[in-house]
Amino acid sequence: MSQPVSETSLTGIKPTGEPHLGNFVGAIRPALELTKQYESIYFIADYHALTTIRDPKLLRHYTRSVAATWLAAGLDPSRTVMYRQSDIPEIFELHWALSCVTAKGLMNRAHAYKAARDKNAATGREDLDAGINMGLYNYPVLMAVDILIMESDVVPVGKDQVQHVEYAADIAGSFNHLYGDSYEFKIPKAIVPEADTGRTLPGLDGRKMSKSYDNTIPLFLPEAQLRKLVRRIPTDSTPVEAPKDPDSSAVFQILQQFATQDVITDTRKRLMAGGVGWGELKNQLFEVLNQEITPLRERYHALMEPDSELDALLAEGAQRARERAQRVLRSVRSAIGIDTER
Amino acid sequence: MSQPVSETSLTGIKPTGEPHLGNFVGAIRPALELTKQYESIYFIADYHALTTIRDPKLLRHYTRSVAATWLAAGLDPSRTVMYRQSDIPEIFELHWALSCVTAKGLMNRAHAYKAARDKNAATGREDLDAGINMGLYNYPVLMAVDILIMESDVVPVGKDQVQHVEYAADIAGSFNHLYGDSYEFKIPKAIVPEADTGRTLPGLDGRKMSKSYDNTIPLFLPEAQLRKLVRRIPTDSTPVEAPKDPDSSAVFQILQQFATQDVITDTRKRLMAGGVGWGELKNQLFEVLNQEITPLRERYHALMEPDSELDALLAEGAQRARERAQRVLRSVRSAIGIDTER
Repeated sequence: MSQPVSETSLTGIKPTGEPHLGNFVGAIRPALELTKQYESIYFIADYHALTTIRDPKLLRHYTRSVAATWLAAGLDPSRTVMYRQSDIPEIFELHWALSCVTAKGLMNRAHAYKAARDKNAATGREDLDAGINMGLYNYPVLMAVDILIMESDVVPVGKDQVQHVEYAADIAGSFNHLYGDSYEFKIPKAIVPEADTGRTLPGLDGRKMSKSYDNTIPLFLPEAQLRKLVRRIPTDSTPVEAPKDPDSSAVFQILQQFATQDVITDTRKRLMAGGVGWGELKNQLFEVLNQEITPLRERYHALMEPDSELDALLAEGAQRARERAQRVLRSVRSAIGIDTER
Repeated sequence: MSQPVSETSLTGIKPTGEPHLGNFVGAIRPALELTKQYESIYFIADYHALTTIRDPKLLRHYTRSVAATWLAAGLDPSRTVMYRQSDIPEIFELHWALSCVTAKGLMNRAHAYKAARDKNAATGREDLDAGINMGLYNYPVLMAVDILIMESDVVPVGKDQVQHVEYAADIAGSFNHLYGDSYEFKIPKAIVPEADTGRTLPGLDGRKMSKSYDNTIPLFLPEAQLRKLVRRIPTDSTPVEAPKDPDSSAVFQILQQFATQDVITDTRKRLMAGGVGWGELKNQLFEVLNQEITPLRERYHALMEPDSELDALLAEGAQRARERAQRVLRSVRSAIGIDTER
């Protein structure tokens, strides 16, 4: 009996900052859930990060940090493939090949590029392309390659990222139209979580927790600092004895993402009854968070040691990813007429 | 005593057609002369050709044909490096890295892109980017990489190609500004032949011999066809016995590029004296051409055989070129913060 072949899902992670609780709840945990349903592939998009990060030390650090975070969070390297984009040279050769079948007009309509132009327009700059580099402009083509070279079936993305998958499908379509007799790219589909509710956390200023608002609680803070930041989550001035609305409390919203169902139900009741102050709720949140995070934090720091197994794990992932990439690139080279053996 | 290190020159050849007499005189012969003065590197820009050639058989054929032509014309693979661009994957990774330090504005001003937009404007198209692919648009960045990755000192180009070398210098400058503490690209210089006079040949319609005018005499025509095409070179109706002006004769202009100085001087005298008809001059031109080309033609066809030494020579060239490319890419990866061992 033959095994049913499961579909492949691809998740890209751009190493541009320290992971925070919002990433963990909104991106890392749901992405790790995918392994139940898909053959899951994860990659660290370090060459994408190069469009904005000019500090080599920072890029190196963020790249290792992303890998260590996902492994600490439970990514199982024996059941999934995780690799650094920069370990797969085939990606960049395919990027050129697919550039040649990609209409420039498509790039002109890309969200990130248009946003950068709008920003120039808003600040009254005459040259709307001012400050825009060719990496940013080419970004959607490289993204398409990331997806296509792994023969991905599905790409789980937020709503604002759907265009990238549509572009990948578009570029694959152009190639297939021209060279489909020799090789056909698989056409990828975006999967967007039905509701983002409960997947975004409030940050330290009450707005969505996000690096761009500078309101995050970093995931792997030392215990004392974690306690300190939890205390800074905003609350209203309802007195201790008064009943409180759990759903309008940022503290409770975060707790909901980390506590067991029993604890959540019980805490909700106690808040609505009155007699529980914000200070007490924050202590509870800290305990819950710290209990969940402590083993992850330890694993993270162990992986971040210079001589940890991290590099070997990345090298293994790269090897498995390269096998897929080489197979695809070989077919593409043969289809376009550039097919010398290396 | 240490040897003086000579400068490196780089010549790129786009495999987009059959070589003709005009290429031989205007490009191949002068480029082969460079070996006297420079450490000379030649590459076949097959991935550049992909921006326009969609027929894999044709791309394969032109690529081998270019290599065979240059070897037949005297390129000495033991004293120079010749390789196919597509054999050097480092080029495409560096292309991405340098894209990230290249201003989009620079590409907007590139000649080839502007010409394509002007053409759209002239035909009344509303979308000036219509029909323009990202390969064409990115072309100058890839060209810069071709030059920089070989640490070229000089790039011999026609006047219309100087911008490419300027762009390479520009992009190198941006990189050096950002990362110069770790790695500095060598800044390349264009060398433009002082006078193009005598390096362009008239074609079968009297205009400059060029593929785009469809007026060429292919370099490796069989003898009988060569004779036939030479007969089609336009002449005026001066009678046999009348004196003729050699310098306004297309036949004589071509002869000048292939005959010895003695033969040229003698033929000039005889034409000016009268009594030599165009038919006789054409016979003479055919003999001179055929004598020079016959050994080249034989070598070319031998190299074009499927089992010739051509592929081995290209593989050797690729290996030597990759050593240079790998050294440069390794330094760049380290400078930008992407420096894992492979």
